[in-house]
Formats: sequence, structure tokens, C-alpha cells
Amino acid sequence: MNNFTFYNPVRVVFGKGAIGQLGELVPSEGKVMLLYGGGSIKKNGVYTQVTEALTDREVVEFGGIESNPKLETCMKAVALAAQEGAEFLLAVGGGSVLDATKFIAAACSYAGDDPWEIVVTRGAVIRSAMPLGTVLTLPATGSEMNCISVISRESTDEKLAFKNPAVFPKFSVLDPEVTYSLPTKQLRNGVVDAFCHVMEQYITYDLVTPLQGRQSEAIASTLVEWAGRILSGQKDYDARANLMWCAAQALNGLTACGVVEDWATHMIGHELTAFFGLAHAESLAVVMPGVWEFEKGNKKAKLAQLAECVWGVGEGSVDEKAEAGIEKTVAFFESVEMPTRLSDYGIGREGVKKVVERFAERGTVLGENQDIDAERVGEILRLCI
Amino acid sequence: MNNFTFYNPVRVVFGKGAIGQLGELVPSEGKVMLLYGGGSIKKNGVYTQVTEALTDREVVEFGGIESNPKLETCMKAVALAAQEGAEFLLAVGGGSVLDATKFIAAACSYAGDDPWEIVVTRGAVIRSAMPLGTVLTLPATGSEMNCISVISRESTDEKLAFKNPAVFPKFSVLDPEVTYSLPTKQLRNGVVDAFCHVMEQYITYDLVTPLQGRQSEAIASTLVEWAGRILSGQKDYDARANLMWCAAQALNGLTACGVVEDWATHMIGHELTAFFGLAHAESLAVVMPGVWEFEKGNKKAKLAQLAECVWGVGEGSVDEKAEAGIEKTVAFFESVEMPTRLSDYGIGREGVKKVVERFAERGTVLGENQDIDAERVGEILRLCI
Repeated sequence: MNNFTFYNPVRVVFGKGAIGQLGELVPSEGKVMLLYGGGSIKKNGVYTQVTEALTDREVVEFGGIESNPKLETCMKAVALAAQEGAEFLLAVGGGSVLDATKFIAAACSYAGDDPWEIVVTRGAVIRSAMPLGTVLTLPATGSEMNCISVISRESTDEKLAFKNPAVFPKFSVLDPEVTYSLPTKQLRNGVVDAFCHVMEQYITYDLVTPLQGRQSEAIASTLVEWAGRILSGQKDYDARANLMWCAAQALNGLTACGVVEDWATHMIGHELTAFFGLAHAESLAVVMPGVWEFEKGNKKAKLAQLAECVWGVGEGSVDEKAEAGIEKTVAFFESVEMPTRLSDYGIGREGVKKVVERFAERGTVLGENQDIDAERVGEILRLCI
Repeated sequence: MNNFTFYNPVRVVFGKGAIGQLGELVPSEGKVMLLYGGGSIKKNGVYTQVTEALTDREVVEFGGIESNPKLETCMKAVALAAQEGAEFLLAVGGGSVLDATKFIAAACSYAGDDPWEIVVTRGAVIRSAMPLGTVLTLPATGSEMNCISVISRESTDEKLAFKNPAVFPKFSVLDPEVTYSLPTKQLRNGVVDAFCHVMEQYITYDLVTPLQGRQSEAIASTLVEWAGRILSGQKDYDARANLMWCAAQALNGLTACGVVEDWATHMIGHELTAFFGLAHAESLAVVMPGVWEFEKGNKKAKLAQLAECVWGVGEGSVDEKAEAGIEKTVAFFESVEMPTRLSDYGIGREGVKKVVERFAERGTVLGENQDIDAERVGEILRLCI
């Protein structure tokens, strides 16, 4: 086991009617800035629940945060927060709104000239941030229980992640009932996103971390077991509650304790989103099987463990089980109607070339062995066509 | 799933050499009070590591905290802290030292007349506490990652738990190497204690919490799988690291999210410790099989799940599996040389009567169904003779 530090001070308030607790959770002094996305919260009743819980507070609103939130949009919110003298940010939405709010919180306190530096330095320049809380409406990214944010810059087609403890939400309100109005496609994306988050921390190489392995398998197995009910179209509280808690647990730092992590799939996937507009989960479902196939030699022990412990494969050699681990994961994605090939999105060798060039420019290397350079990104993506 | 709030702000600093980080973890201003037990930390090198990491700090020491720490001892520490003007408490030891330090932290800030009220009210009267950090030397109770403390009062033979977020450690340093000098008996107690903590949150009735169930099984299975290596007498880093992380996870609030908890075993066990001096884990190993046997009707679904998922029992009816769940747990305790009968400690019907009288005086009822009164405590304990 590697040495590690685990620190996660997010207060999770989970369950039916939890939004009603906002009055106690949001600081009683100072103006609150309420941030949200395209306005679905006004249709599904969440906006009403939130504003009713905050009736005695001074609230300023900033709506219109898009999927894959843009620097350009965030900077408008930073300007409004300064103009209005906001002292607390309340994000109401999915991962995009939460990620944007984390960036806005950091940018509001940033003394440097160009807030994009917050992202480029992966959060290293952050010294403090405006306090923030969240009300989650779409379980998927795990942003509600971590200090990670992914921001896109339109002017350069970039999508990059940063991380800093200063942007941990003070609280996150998770009411599974708010997910009843979500389209099946977003629930599907949520299931796949959470599954892939676990895998990025699990399918690497073994450092004798049996508890973390089992905790990873716990989340993955629960997602697999419940996917059918989650996507049934029914108002199924148990199913939605289990998805919501799995998604929060999938990227809250716990399964990463003491292990080596991969994240190549995410890094490559971000470029597919930036260039071709794939939803985050869609990009992961395409890239992950390719990364595993390419890295099978290094990852085979863990792929075989996945096959045994999540997919129930009892028979075969380690190599056969590793292969089954990949195949059954692809079959799972397909079972929830998630495309698994680049060609499903009309992306071919030209598209791959564009992504490879981006990695070549940056000179980054990816994966737990830091051996995936731009050329290998190309080899992986050609396996995904 | 029940509604829940999860909040655990403890910073866990885990691994080889982690004590060396104390210089950054302990606040740089103000006098530090270092609290420890019987002096084993002076023999095993931990005291030296701690004081070397704090060479530039003003430190006052309070040693001699006993197992099942006493109110009377704690109050001496409170007086010393006030006299010396300590501003931060650093607990170095096992669960007893950590629990005592939590009480001392609360008592230092307590405005009422009688600090025993902190315990009697189960922590309800706590408004604030002196900040504290811990260096764990004995993985067992999970005190390093929760806000629970158990304190005994000598004058009345009482042992009671309290809980309050104000006494969460700011940090806990977990270096598995410090456990190399522990006697086998203490390691055995640690394994059983952590196992029983998980069971108190797991063997109740089902509220459709599959993730929490699997997370519980993850900890229990890892303890069972590694018990042999943990108790081998070897300096086996992996084994000690896995024990240490399992014990911290076993009572940090995570597996309790949204489930119904039992804790009857603990409540009864505390009285066995108070009256007859059994170590905490010893009391649990005796009482838990009795509670399960007595409550088998209510608990059988979860006992059967334990049999399947932790003990690998594939065949049989729910009743048969439930029975196997109990039998195999008893066999596990015996496999680590942990006695499982009251008679192993010379306690018979007279002793049971004493405990029953205590519960009758208090009028408390125990268990997830709140149906275990004093009379039933007697029935349970007679099953344990």
C-alpha cells in the first residue's frame, strides 16, 4: 500500500426532503449566489424547493451554465458575484454546474491576472476560495463530494481538470427524488460515469490493497446490479438512492487511498468532448475498453479480478479472465444502450489524428505507468474506431 | 434507505514515516499537550518520533491514561491543561488514550458544573472543544476517525459512550509500522473489535442499502482474510496496513449511512468490562453470538447474507444460512484464540444477574428494534455462559 492522505470534509445531507435543510446549511449572514444550468430546475420543482428554503436570505441568481462549463461563462458569474457582493455560492444542478461553481469560487478569490491559470496549474495557484454548497440534481460525476472541477475554454477547444481542497463543498444535498425527472440518457450517462470513475482507480496494478479493491467492487457491483431499475423509467426511490450514493462514493477519494490510479481514459476522453462534443460518459465508454486492451499486459491481474468479483467469471486462466473482464464491461455498456465505438459518433482516423496532435503538442504522458505518449494515444484510439 | 447525514472531516495521514508530518499537522502557535498511556510509546520509539517532530513546539505531557479511561484520570488532565494553558491536545496511543483525549477536549471547554454530564447526556451538552489530533498506536476501536468516546467512572462502575462532532480529531496519523511492537493479544482484540463494529451496523434488517452492505462485507472479509498474517508475529507491513485501514473504516460513519444499527452487543459488553474487567473486544466476542442467537428471527436475512458474502456459504435455506453465519463467526473468533463464553472468564449466573440489575435500574432498551429490555439482556447473557 502506498502512503496516502485522506481528507474529505463535505457534509452530505442525503434523502427525501433534504433540500428543506438548506435554511440551516447555508450561512445565515451574507448574500447567496444561486447558480444553475439551462433551467430544468425551474420545471422539475427543485428551484421552488431551494428558493422556499432560502426565503429569508438575500439571493442573487446566475443561470445558464452549460454542459462542459466554459471559462467564458464562469467569468461572467465571477463579475456578477463581485458586483453583487455575494459571500456564498450555492450550485444547484449536475456535475457541470458544480464544477463551474468550484471554479467561480476559486476565481472570486484569485489575485492573479488570468484566472485560467487556476486550471492550467491544476489548482496549484489556489490559496483560498469563496465558500460553496451544492444541491445535486444529476448523479454522475461525483463532484458533489470532491474538490475536483473540469473546465473548458472555448477559445482554444481545451477541457482541463483542477483540484484543490479550498473548493470542497461545505455541504452537498442529495435528494434521490429530484432525479425522477431526468431523461434516461442522463441516467445512463450517470451509471457509466460512476462505473468508469471506480475503474480508473482500480484497473491498474496491485499494491496489496484488498479493502480498497473490495470497496471499488462494492460500488461497481451495485451499479451493475441496479442499472436495470435505475433506467426503468419508474419513480423507483431505492434505485435512484443507490445510484446517487454510488456516484458520490465513486470519486470521493476513498477508493484511491494507497493505490495507483490511471486516468488515461479521462484525459483522452476530455479531448473527444472538446473536439467532437461527446458527453463525458460517452467518451469514457468508448476509450476505456481501448486503454484496457492496449495495456492488457500491465493490467491483466486487476482485469481478471474485475471479471471474478464484479462479473462473476469463475473459470479460465488469468489471461482469459482479463479478456472476459474487458468483454463483459463492453457488454454492460451496450446493455444500457451506451455506444462503445468512435464510429458510432462518426469519428474515424482523421478525428483520431486531431486528438493525437493535441497530445503531441502538450507532450503529456498518461496512465499509471506514465508510458502512454501521443503515439500510443493514437494506437489506443484506433482500437476504438 | 433511511435519510442520513454523513460528515467526517478527519484528515487521515497514513503510511510509513507519517509521524514525521506532525510538524506540519500540529498548529504552529500555542502550547501542545501530549497525552499517552502506560508508557509503551517510550519503549517502542513512538515517543521519540513524536517529540522529534515537535522539537520547536512548547509541549506539556500527561501520561498514565489507563485502558477503559476513567473520568477521574481525565479530570487530572483537564486541570493540567488549564494550569499550563494548553491550546491543542495530541493523543498518542490506542482507543483509550484517544477516547480520553476527546473527553478532555470537551471538558476543557465545558462551562457546566459537572463534566460527567458530557457523558451522561451522550455528548448533547457539548458546545465546543479544544482542538485535538491523534497518533494511533493500536488499530481497534476506530476512535481515530470518529467523534465517539467511551469513558468509565470508577466511583460508580459505569462505562458510557458519548458522541459530538466537536471532538472529531483534526487529524489522525496512522503508521502501520508502530504496530510491530504490539503483543498478539492486542492485535487479536483489534481484529475482533473492528469486525464487531462492522457487524453492529450490518446485522440488523434490510433497508435496501446494497452499497453499504457490500462496504461492510469488504471490511469484514478483509479482516478475516488477513487475520492469520496480522497475528503471525512477523513484521508484515501489508498485514498491519490492512488492519489499520480496516479498523479506521469500521466505525467512521460510512457503513452506517442510511441503515439501521444495533449496538446491543456494545451496550451489554460495556457492563461486562465495567463489572468484570474484560477487554472491550473480549466482551464483544462473548455477547455478539448471544445477541444474534436471541434475535435470529429478526436478523436472519442479514445473518444469511453474512454467511454467503463473508463466509462463502453457498448452500441451504435462509434459516440454515443464518445459523451458519453465527457458527462461522464464533469459529472465526476461536481461530484467533478469542474466548467466546462468559465461563471462559469465570462469569456465571450470578454475574449475569448483576448486569441485568444494572439495565433494570437504567430502564434502557437495546437493539435495532428497541425490544431488548433488562429481562432479555438476562436471556441473552445466559445463552453466553
